[in-house]
Amino acid sequence: MDRLVTQLSRLPSIGKRSAQRLAFHLLKSPAQDAAELAAAITDLKQNARHCSECFNLTESDPCPICADPKRDQATILVVEQPSDIAAFEATGTYRGVYHVLMGRLSPLDGLGPGELTVEPLLRRAKPAAPQADPTTAAASDPGSSAKPTHSSPPVREVILGMGPTLEGDGTALYLAQRLQESGVNVTRLARGLPTGSTLEMVSKAVLSDSIQGRHAMPVD
Amino acid sequence: MDRLVTQLSRLPSIGKRSAQRLAFHLLKSPAQDAAELAAAITDLKQNARHCSECFNLTESDPCPICADPKRDQATILVVEQPSDIAAFEATGTYRGVYHVLMGRLSPLDGLGPGELTVEPLLRRAKPAAPQADPTTAAASDPGSSAKPTHSSPPVREVILGMGPTLEGDGTALYLAQRLQESGVNVTRLARGLPTGSTLEMVSKAVLSDSIQGRHAMPVD
Repeated sequence: MDRLVTQLSRLPSIGKRSAQRLAFHLLKSPAQDAAELAAAITDLKQNARHCSECFNLTESDPCPICADPKRDQATILVVEQPSDIAAFEATGTYRGVYHVLMGRLSPLDGLGPGELTVEPLLRRAKPAAPQADPTTAAASDPGSSAKPTHSSPPVREVILGMGPTLEGDGTALYLAQRLQESGVNVTRLARGLPTGSTLEMVSKAVLSDSIQGRHAMPVD
Repeated sequence: MDRLVTQLSRLPSIGKRSAQRLAFHLLKSPAQDAAELAAAITDLKQNARHCSECFNLTESDPCPICADPKRDQATILVVEQPSDIAAFEATGTYRGVYHVLMGRLSPLDGLGPGELTVEPLLRRAKPAAPQADPTTAAASDPGSSAKPTHSSPPVREVILGMGPTLEGDGTALYLAQRLQESGVNVTRLARGLPTGSTLEMVSKAVLSDSIQGRHAMPVD
């Protein structure tokens, strides 16, 4: 009992008293339920891995999103964490694929580009090769026609989906600069007024963003 | 004393007990302070009026913003309430002028275009007359060259600064349609992720907005 309480209280947002309450609940519940919970925890650690394409958490590789033929493989939304994918999927509006950066640039915490999945992203973000005349291309610049490292389709757009924070902005700028040479379109999530709020509720920075990012009003 | 408590408790967010506390505070404070408060209240009602140009609350007409030669008179930010002007001015980034709508369209509350300052806005939003050949213009369409009703300069852009709510959106769409014939550029404040938040904190609607409104990432 003491061992379980100690283990449970190491989970985030679960203190000693919550851990005791959970442990007593498990003690009273049917053996079947407790066994299933234990098996689910074991399974998670044994079977969950990162998708070799997008680094999403998955039990199959490639993950169900990368393997879905109905998703637009030419649009990649770059996010910081696997949990961000769940948030975007819940909106039901995004039909492209993802790339999990596994964090964001944070020099103070010692997180540089090498700790993130930047290089795999650059390898994925190969645009469609322009239909140039092969003889001219070979003659003028033979070194630039690198062979594709794998069979993924050409990418049209990379959306930088970092959070609207200072570190998120820094990471987005770094990635935009690195992606520039690949020639793909690089876009950033819109910044502005959060739907459903009121002007009195939002900060000065949000109001400034909303003015700077204003766009033509569509009239049908 | 009772009369003052009754009057104070009619103010928003001040209950009976707060009103009593305020009244006792006034009773204990120097006569000078109480007199100044009373004078300020009287002054407000005697001198505050709406600017005849933009309907901002002001003591002088036109208001200091409309009268400021350093403000860009060709850009009008349309807001719902005079208090919204204070919020945008606090950002220090907007250099144009304003137009206070005095509310927003709300059919359920009986608020139609006639209750708002829509007509004065349409009169203000006259774009610069195109430098057409006078003979051709007069021959082809003599009725369309309406005389300007007052001497305000031509307007280049009208920014719809309604709140990011259903009624705000409805009002913005109505105004955009009405302004369409005037030929000025009509823009809307950006909708998206509020700066400083995190992706986990925002709603599905905000995430959808941020994807739909994504824009090319500037790289310097």
